[in-house]
Amino acid sequence: MRALVKVSAGPGMEVREVPIPSCGPSDALIKVHYAGVCGTDLHIWEWDAWAAGRLKPPVTIGHEFAGEIVELGPEAKAEGLLAIGDLVTAEGHIVCGHCLPCRTGDAHVCRRTRIIGVDRDGAFAEYITMPASNVMKLDGIPPEIGAIMDPMGNAVHTVLEGGNVPGSAVLVLGCGPIGCFAVGVARAAGASLVIASDYNPMRLELARKMGAHVTLNPGSDDVVAKCRELTGGEGVDLVCEMSGHPAGHQTAFSAARLGGRVNFLGTPAKTTDVNFARDVIFKGLTLYGVTGRRMYDTWQQMFRLLRAGQLDPRPTVTHRFPLERIADAIQVIKEGQAGKVILEIA
Amino acid sequence: MRALVKVSAGPGMEVREVPIPSCGPSDALIKVHYAGVCGTDLHIWEWDAWAAGRLKPPVTIGHEFAGEIVELGPEAKAEGLLAIGDLVTAEGHIVCGHCLPCRTGDAHVCRRTRIIGVDRDGAFAEYITMPASNVMKLDGIPPEIGAIMDPMGNAVHTVLEGGNVPGSAVLVLGCGPIGCFAVGVARAAGASLVIASDYNPMRLELARKMGAHVTLNPGSDDVVAKCRELTGGEGVDLVCEMSGHPAGHQTAFSAARLGGRVNFLGTPAKTTDVNFARDVIFKGLTLYGVTGRRMYDTWQQMFRLLRAGQLDPRPTVTHRFPLERIADAIQVIKEGQAGKVILEIA
Amino acid sequence: MRALVKVSAGPGMEVREVPIPSCGPSDALIKVHYAGVCGTDLHIWEWDAWAAGRLKPPVTIGHEFAGEIVELGPEAKAEGLLAIGDLVTAEGHIVCGHCLPCRTGDAHVCRRTRIIGVDRDGAFAEYITMPASNVMKLDGIPPEIGAIMDPMGNAVHTVLEGGNVPGSAVLVLGCGPIGCFAVGVARAAGASLVIASDYNPMRLELARKMGAHVTLNPGSDDVVAKCRELTGGEGVDLVCEMSGHPAGHQTAFSAARLGGRVNFLGTPAKTTDVNFARDVIFKGLTLYGVTGRRMYDTWQQMFRLLRAGQLDPRPTVTHRFPLERIADAIQVIKEGQAGKVILEIA
Amino acid sequence: MRALVKVSAGPGMEVREVPIPSCGPSDALIKVHYAGVCGTDLHIWEWDAWAAGRLKPPVTIGHEFAGEIVELGPEAKAEGLLAIGDLVTAEGHIVCGHCLPCRTGDAHVCRRTRIIGVDRDGAFAEYITMPASNVMKLDGIPPEIGAIMDPMGNAVHTVLEGGNVPGSAVLVLGCGPIGCFAVGVARAAGASLVIASDYNPMRLELARKMGAHVTLNPGSDDVVAKCRELTGGEGVDLVCEMSGHPAGHQTAFSAARLGGRVNFLGTPAKTTDVNFARDVIFKGLTLYGVTGRRMYDTWQQMFRLLRAGQLDPRPTVTHRFPLERIADAIQVIKEGQAGKVILEIA
Repeated sequence: MRALVKVSAGPGMEVREVPIPSCGPSDALIKVHYAGVCGTDLHIWEWDAWAAGRLKPPVTIGHEFAGEIVELGPEAKAEGLLAIGDLVTAEGHIVCGHCLPCRTGDAHVCRRTRIIGVDRDGAFAEYITMPASNVMKLDGIPPEIGAIMDPMGNAVHTVLEGGNVPGSAVLVLGCGPIGCFAVGVARAAGASLVIASDYNPMRLELARKMGAHVTLNPGSDDVVAKCRELTGGEGVDLVCEMSGHPAGHQTAFSAARLGGRVNFLGTPAKTTDVNFARDVIFKGLTLYGVTGRRMYDTWQQMFRLLRAGQLDPRPTVTHRFPLERIADAIQVIKEGQAGKVILEIA
Repeated sequence: MRALVKVSAGPGMEVREVPIPSCGPSDALIKVHYAGVCGTDLHIWEWDAWAAGRLKPPVTIGHEFAGEIVELGPEAKAEGLLAIGDLVTAEGHIVCGHCLPCRTGDAHVCRRTRIIGVDRDGAFAEYITMPASNVMKLDGIPPEIGAIMDPMGNAVHTVLEGGNVPGSAVLVLGCGPIGCFAVGVARAAGASLVIASDYNPMRLELARKMGAHVTLNPGSDDVVAKCRELTGGEGVDLVCEMSGHPAGHQTAFSAARLGGRVNFLGTPAKTTDVNFARDVIFKGLTLYGVTGRRMYDTWQQMFRLLRAGQLDPRPTVTHRFPLERIADAIQVIKEGQAGKVILEIA
Repeated sequence: MRALVKVSAGPGMEVREVPIPSCGPSDALIKVHYAGVCGTDLHIWEWDAWAAGRLKPPVTIGHEFAGEIVELGPEAKAEGLLAIGDLVTAEGHIVCGHCLPCRTGDAHVCRRTRIIGVDRDGAFAEYITMPASNVMKLDGIPPEIGAIMDPMGNAVHTVLEGGNVPGSAVLVLGCGPIGCFAVGVARAAGASLVIASDYNPMRLELARKMGAHVTLNPGSDDVVAKCRELTGGEGVDLVCEMSGHPAGHQTAFSAARLGGRVNFLGTPAKTTDVNFARDVIFKGLTLYGVTGRRMYDTWQQMFRLLRAGQLDPRPTVTHRFPLERIADAIQVIKEGQAGKVILEIA
Repeated sequence: MRALVKVSAGPGMEVREVPIPSCGPSDALIKVHYAGVCGTDLHIWEWDAWAAGRLKPPVTIGHEFAGEIVELGPEAKAEGLLAIGDLVTAEGHIVCGHCLPCRTGDAHVCRRTRIIGVDRDGAFAEYITMPASNVMKLDGIPPEIGAIMDPMGNAVHTVLEGGNVPGSAVLVLGCGPIGCFAVGVARAAGASLVIASDYNPMRLELARKMGAHVTLNPGSDDVVAKCRELTGGEGVDLVCEMSGHPAGHQTAFSAARLGGRVNFLGTPAKTTDVNFARDVIFKGLTLYGVTGRRMYDTWQQMFRLLRAGQLDPRPTVTHRFPLERIADAIQVIKEGQAGKVILEIA
């Protein structure tokens, strides 16, 4: 089959012919229809320090996908819950199920997590195998949307962690694809005010399409002052920190109301200097670090919002390429002129 | 001033001239503009067993209202948070603030609760005094809506208790005014499916106007079967039991999904025979009894949903009468052909 | 191997020679050392209506056990988390992992649950196979205690559901083995007052040994009045309803404080007449039906309390019998003179 | 009356004769028996930047106290919940009751908070007035202990925020008086492992007396490695950060388990450089800033643990002085050789 492979340590990826993966007793073999390209794939392409420290080439890249089940291992078949022909997506974090986090509702931070397209072969390929327990039936959701449920799930996790979204004021800092999804999730979940902030006008335009009540550009707007003004001086109830920049962190602390919450998803390349006394302790803030998706509360919430039509991620999708044009896909992301980019595989 | 007074033990009420209440040091004196008529007022009018056991005539009736502050006691004035001329409504449960429930976030079940229009003089009058701490500024919400925030708050409490409304399937059993408000609250809070059930077609029409996706009439529909069908066989996540009928209770238990929740607001006149093993224990259900409004989380949530325009209770309001026509107001409620009924006082 | 088998529809069980179960790819084969006898086993022995409706003989009985892993299927071995020779116990509810409750933290009410010793062969046998994901390593907990972690887990679930146990007043209604465990769990979890109630003086003696501050006998004590007196008139924060009797239910509603909680574990044979208005709605109570153990939060909490020595279930264990003396084990339970009864198998 | 007064901007305090404060309509006038000396009082004595920016001399110092009600304003008397002669303590944060945090269970971060002994006259005096709603009856708790319930409440808030203490592993970083109280609270609340860390051997000795299972000195122990070793490699569930040092913050992040929690009480004088990606996001941590005491959940929990004898703060109290010897009290605190220091006033 064709697959997009990080062949050796260093920049770039190659489309190669590789064997179709074999389907273990508890696995599903899935023919991939669509896959999403993530910022992580950009890091892998560029072979940054994180990628160099984690990947062991050769490895097939890609962790966001949807497709069709074409084979089931005997254990998976015996369960009777999945069938050949089912259109599906999958949770890309394969976890141990036995450690303390796995056993107490925090499997998303399992310390034995293996991520597809990073720690084992991934989804930028004609076929992928997944443990049946990671597979989610689309039940009517179009596969193009199924292919981006992994990052959309990051957004759902970020927005809904902490509860109390109905009626609340939410600031989304950073309007990359996950930030744009977060805007849509906050609206779907009944937020009364969704403010989106980014330096990039194109991204702010996507955030508006996803339902932001107000968009701010820190290059010209005083984000903190504007958040206070829009909330009667209180500040926002929830900040979704998607930028990963220390400046975003400071904005987050300042824009959150007394007793408010900041959920951090954007992973910074450097450290942040935090004034804990002023910004965390005296404000009574709660901060939370978002990894992956809650397994599987996040997925259930997302499926429901999608199936009811409350959440429509399509305005965020700006580009589609065939697998062979991965270099073009990487390029539009690097140029900062893309929302979500999808690979059309089969 | 004019006031609607339960003059003596027995049916009926009378419009009387009574003294304007005096304003204590921590009180606000409020000129009443609008007041809502509640099922409780009907019980008081008819002087049922509950009313006979609780009220000590003469007492001015009415606990739902909005109006304008015309006087503030010195302590209330010194706080500087309310001002003459403010348009306001108020929480009608006056609580002690010192008991265990009051001290732990459950003031709505304070055991020293005194309810206006029941345990002390109420709001069907030209003026009412309230402790300043019970007064809520309308900040732009029209007083006609402010006057029905007490029952709307019951609906907010019922729908939002337990969290997790975004994406959920909610069944509202009983579409009196509070049930209709509950439909609107569930939609505003991001429920994916809101099913409303009542025997009365007029009420189902109001529920539809408030946003119900599906309305069912137990006279002709199999409510439980329909709920399962609409939820892929699971049952609903949350039942808001507003009917107060044992039959409604059984429907609630059966329609709730495994691990689901039933919040009870409708107060039954008789007992219910419950199969705890089958309907509660083996289903892993959570049941919750709703009294009043959480003080003041419920109010804050309601203000936000109203101010953002997510919740619009107006379709539920079907009748308006001047104070003098209380008998007509009681009559339309008794006939079951009214949604919410409002008294226009000033 | 020897196994205690319900041979055919009707009362009794027999020790039979049956084949050692085969170990599937994801299974562990466990040599059983000890097993606990449960009230459920008594129902099966007596072949009551529930048993007749659910069991399909022949089936090996028993769902509480501990023992040693003697074989691992290839998938289970590949995981590397369990090893031959590990002393283990297991969660006896085998669930699907795919349904809504399984996917949202409520696997204990999976609608495809298969219980060992009920829906498939169980633990009153020399060997049992279990899915590896249900197996819990004892890590130093003695197997005699491991064998009763299933019912102890019921107690942990009942006591800790709802949180806020530290400093609270807890009433345990019904002091069978699970009630006695609940007393110990409540003490270990920092309850300030643990009241235990039962008609049987022997059981009250066990409850005292498990740490009850106060024991009450409804035959001679006014349980509700005493609970109020011991809590400054408030009532208790949490009732653990383990009796399964309608009279216990009424005591639970009356003894709980305003805003309190009743967790129901005892499964009643008949229905209960509930005054929802007086006992649930106006009190603002939360009721919760307890099935099984939260998978696997309950197990983690239990392991921690046991390993730290905070919870010691041994005073509750009153009898031990070899497998062959099952009739004697059943007899002491029926006579109501036993706490927990253990079968010594290997 | 005698009072300890910050007379003017600059270091030191003086015992002065000042008028007995007048008792407003909703106030209680309290004769002070004992008062606790806090690190905050040391900052005020030394007139550091924080003190210089916040206090407006002349002001009577002191915010931890207990005493006897000697007068009640008419409104407070009419409530009938407090009486002349009641032994009481009080919440020292006087809040507005109307803002969003006050109205949603977060009154401890009211933005109009006025703290006694800081923003208005305090408790190092023969008499103090308090709003009746801030007054808490001791009901049998000795006044020496009542006088230190304010800082003990900080510890209760820090330990219990987040729930799930029963069975958990807790690290207390920094064993000043509040850290020592936190050790006692964690034990009382059913923690399975309480580790206390400080550079000061005397403080570690106090922590041991308060119930720490293990004490560590970062000067000689590898705190993070030891925490992992004691928790089977996982790390601790909860860190109570009481040190206020950036080094403590880093230890907190590293010692917390995946999915764990860090509650910050110690207020740092400088900023901390935080690696959010590694230490917060990929670990799925929750961080929370602790201000004051939850009003009044924290107080209720504390009263219960104290009255049941589960929490005994007395080992932490090392010194007692009469009011006139405030300089000596400040001195022993500065020298780092004191636990809690109490002033004996009447």
